[in-house]
Amino acid sequence: MKEYNVLLVGLIMSASVSMLHTSAMANGSSGTAKTITLDNMNPHIKTMEYAVRGPLVIRATEIEKELAAGAQKPFKEVIKANIGDAHAMGQRPITFIRQVLALVSYPELIDKSDFPADVKTKAREILAGCKGGSAGSYSDSSGIEIIRKHAAEYITRRDGGIPANPDDIILCAGASEGIRATLKLFVETSAGEPGVMIPIPQYPLYSASLAEFGMHQIGYYLNEATGWSLDVPELERSIKEARGICRPRALVVINPGNPTGQVLTKKNIEEIIKFAHKEGLFILADEVYQDNVYAKGSEYHSFKKVMMELGEPYNTMELASYFSTSKGYMGECGLRGGYSEVVNLDKSVKAMLLKSISAKLCPTVLGQATMDCVVDPPKPGSPSYDLFIKEKTDVLQSLAKRAVMIADTFNSIPGIKCNPVQGAMYAFPQITIPAKAIEAAKAKGQAADTFYAFELLENTGICIVPGTGFGQYPGTYHFRTTILPQPEKLAVMLDKFKEFHVKFVEKYS
Amino acid sequence: MKEYNVLLVGLIMSASVSMLHTSAMANGSSGTAKTITLDNMNPHIKTMEYAVRGPLVIRATEIEKELAAGAQKPFKEVIKANIGDAHAMGQRPITFIRQVLALVSYPELIDKSDFPADVKTKAREILAGCKGGSAGSYSDSSGIEIIRKHAAEYITRRDGGIPANPDDIILCAGASEGIRATLKLFVETSAGEPGVMIPIPQYPLYSASLAEFGMHQIGYYLNEATGWSLDVPELERSIKEARGICRPRALVVINPGNPTGQVLTKKNIEEIIKFAHKEGLFILADEVYQDNVYAKGSEYHSFKKVMMELGEPYNTMELASYFSTSKGYMGECGLRGGYSEVVNLDKSVKAMLLKSISAKLCPTVLGQATMDCVVDPPKPGSPSYDLFIKEKTDVLQSLAKRAVMIADTFNSIPGIKCNPVQGAMYAFPQITIPAKAIEAAKAKGQAADTFYAFELLENTGICIVPGTGFGQYPGTYHFRTTILPQPEKLAVMLDKFKEFHVKFVEKYS
Repeated sequence: MKEYNVLLVGLIMSASVSMLHTSAMANGSSGTAKTITLDNMNPHIKTMEYAVRGPLVIRATEIEKELAAGAQKPFKEVIKANIGDAHAMGQRPITFIRQVLALVSYPELIDKSDFPADVKTKAREILAGCKGGSAGSYSDSSGIEIIRKHAAEYITRRDGGIPANPDDIILCAGASEGIRATLKLFVETSAGEPGVMIPIPQYPLYSASLAEFGMHQIGYYLNEATGWSLDVPELERSIKEARGICRPRALVVINPGNPTGQVLTKKNIEEIIKFAHKEGLFILADEVYQDNVYAKGSEYHSFKKVMMELGEPYNTMELASYFSTSKGYMGECGLRGGYSEVVNLDKSVKAMLLKSISAKLCPTVLGQATMDCVVDPPKPGSPSYDLFIKEKTDVLQSLAKRAVMIADTFNSIPGIKCNPVQGAMYAFPQITIPAKAIEAAKAKGQAADTFYAFELLENTGICIVPGTGFGQYPGTYHFRTTILPQPEKLAVMLDKFKEFHVKFVEKYS
Repeated sequence: MKEYNVLLVGLIMSASVSMLHTSAMANGSSGTAKTITLDNMNPHIKTMEYAVRGPLVIRATEIEKELAAGAQKPFKEVIKANIGDAHAMGQRPITFIRQVLALVSYPELIDKSDFPADVKTKAREILAGCKGGSAGSYSDSSGIEIIRKHAAEYITRRDGGIPANPDDIILCAGASEGIRATLKLFVETSAGEPGVMIPIPQYPLYSASLAEFGMHQIGYYLNEATGWSLDVPELERSIKEARGICRPRALVVINPGNPTGQVLTKKNIEEIIKFAHKEGLFILADEVYQDNVYAKGSEYHSFKKVMMELGEPYNTMELASYFSTSKGYMGECGLRGGYSEVVNLDKSVKAMLLKSISAKLCPTVLGQATMDCVVDPPKPGSPSYDLFIKEKTDVLQSLAKRAVMIADTFNSIPGIKCNPVQGAMYAFPQITIPAKAIEAAKAKGQAADTFYAFELLENTGICIVPGTGFGQYPGTYHFRTTILPQPEKLAVMLDKFKEFHVKFVEKYS
């Protein structure tokens, strides 16, 4: 019996939901009645889901505690392949970044330490941009001026000379904050529910934020058969269907793709820009993986560059692009550095955007300092240059090898199909789940891929995120795994995965 | 002629508004039509105002650039007394905090540096709480476990043994983020507009966030005549009037007060808690200035302690309390450390709160590390203890002197009246504005206190925030100034202020 999963995203039938109900019953038997309950709280927060940190991850953390307490399991450790968290998986920080942070944190070290001269220069420059010469003072809400300037120069170099304006750069605490600030502009209280087009599969920050802001999610399917390309007829279909329900305002594109790992061709980007122009859509380009391109023949093209090169009328379209210190070769997730570049925005809307972030005061100054090291890294000939390049190259080359290894291994397992991981940090393979397993999942009130992921976790300690958390074509099942476990651990993980999958299929056949 | 200012808060007639209109007209004459304009953007963002970073501050920054470019002014520098940003005003960081941050940022230094042993121990402990031993990995969304544990121990010590639970602690990037996450729970889409009671004058994070979330602001006036006390009859009046318009859900109290500098008595806090209980309100206690108490006889009592000591039924009430690394003696604004302690929350609502922050991944790990140094500082006998205590005491004693100096000086100026600055970092004096000045302001489309603040800025370089930005009793005029300029600079600032005020009154009499 084949079951069609008509819920695209956001519907995770899970352990945590039943947990919640139990807790609710356990509450309120004595003491003051609660002023806020599930019944009278923000309904948008109830609806939103963020699977990357969902019930599977909660269970994985429990298992880690059980193991630490001496529980016997068929595995010794949990492998968290659920989240793009490079350092957690053993990647080493870039020395230049961390030396600069040490000096910015404790400037007394600048003269005392034997750090390279370019590290000291960079630290002094950042401190000169801080009020009172301290990273402990608030920066402007959009970030420290010299760092915005460096970001603009970085973008200009990246885009082969197409200029970027420091006034278009808004530093933020990770890309998520910047994306949310932009999306929030489209909330409307009249004129019908605003809609935002997002890819399916998507990174669940989008579905979660749209749910929270009460906006309509217009899902367009990526084409798995053509390497997760973004087909214009599908964009046309989705916006046409949405027009009766909401007012489409913006188009989100994730390139390189998360969770799907594709790198869009220049031609595909041109088509997307033309489509957005025709439909009057604002483009949000999530380009946080711009340094993570591995496949031969694949190349990163920024939406801004392609848009500017298309010339009139496209070069005056509104576009926001996001970058982050959390991804790339640096993987500095915990430091919370990011920026958005917002071009061609109406000046008064831009003033409103800047006002809207001002009440949050400023993004972390040390996160900004991290971003500064990324957009203005050591130059050839400077003392930190060779080590910086070596560390950067080592990470990216190793990721490129793992990208191949993971896709090849999955494709060697009967019942699993995986597109090449051209970029980003994830594979999103499709799995064939036997009908009996689908029934068993149903009996547990779980989506079939969630059921599969829980079985994998309990039997191997491997934590992945089921496709349901990202959305997938009805009737198909997937999962997302990062390519981040270090090579030896990844080999072990893939062996265990293969063994599990074979047994799973046997068990439910 | 007396003018009644019936707009409590949020209505800042200002240079920036006219600026916006000009920009709007300048736009859109060529190129692609804008998809987002003032007319079709989020109306809540248009409404919100955050005066602490408003038009006066924008002008102050312009003046700084004019001065740097060689412009001749009646002053040599801008004194930014508009924002509680201690390091920007020359306060030195606490050595222990910054040494720990340097080691957490660059762990290779732990063995190499000659930092004190307790600094090294603290850094190792924080790194042990980080996944992969790196501050570059994501933490749990609610923060690193050991830091939440330390925060709970800190609260337990602070409250004389009344226990705190690490599971009730949510670390956040500055208190603002925690406050906004709690307020957001009360957004409702049915059952009428939710209302939140906030003091007038208030810290504009509240008015800005309520405007953004589409919630009703129920202003209750603080009693200036009794040192900005919080009178229950006024609470009763404000909630009664609001009931027809909205559904009151929560009560915000800021103690020590911002912008008003009062420290609530235990008796007053008891009354407030009983009022909230009677009305079924959730209490948000903004207690970020808990270390900033200066006046003899004033003492900080946490809302939680008072609530617990009141016993049944009050000790089961829902309460959220906020703390920050930005204030106190450390003044680490740029590092973005904070926590909320949320007690007695319905368990399923708490799960929703945790879920709602998960899409933002985690607060900055270095901000969390900063908070750890504050809630688990060097202990007596440990190598950093003496210096830590000296630095902490020096800052707090100096602030206490400046608090007296500023109130005394303002009270010596005819036409200015200032309550004692018992705590926090601000004075909020009342000014008598001559009728002719009120007319001149009106002619410029400005509130009279905004007009006064602009005149002050242009003539002296002193940047304050007009009372309009915080709200004030109709027909009264105030301003907020920080007490943060270093003593010598503060003396100069107060002299200039006095001279300006006398001239201003002469000019408009």
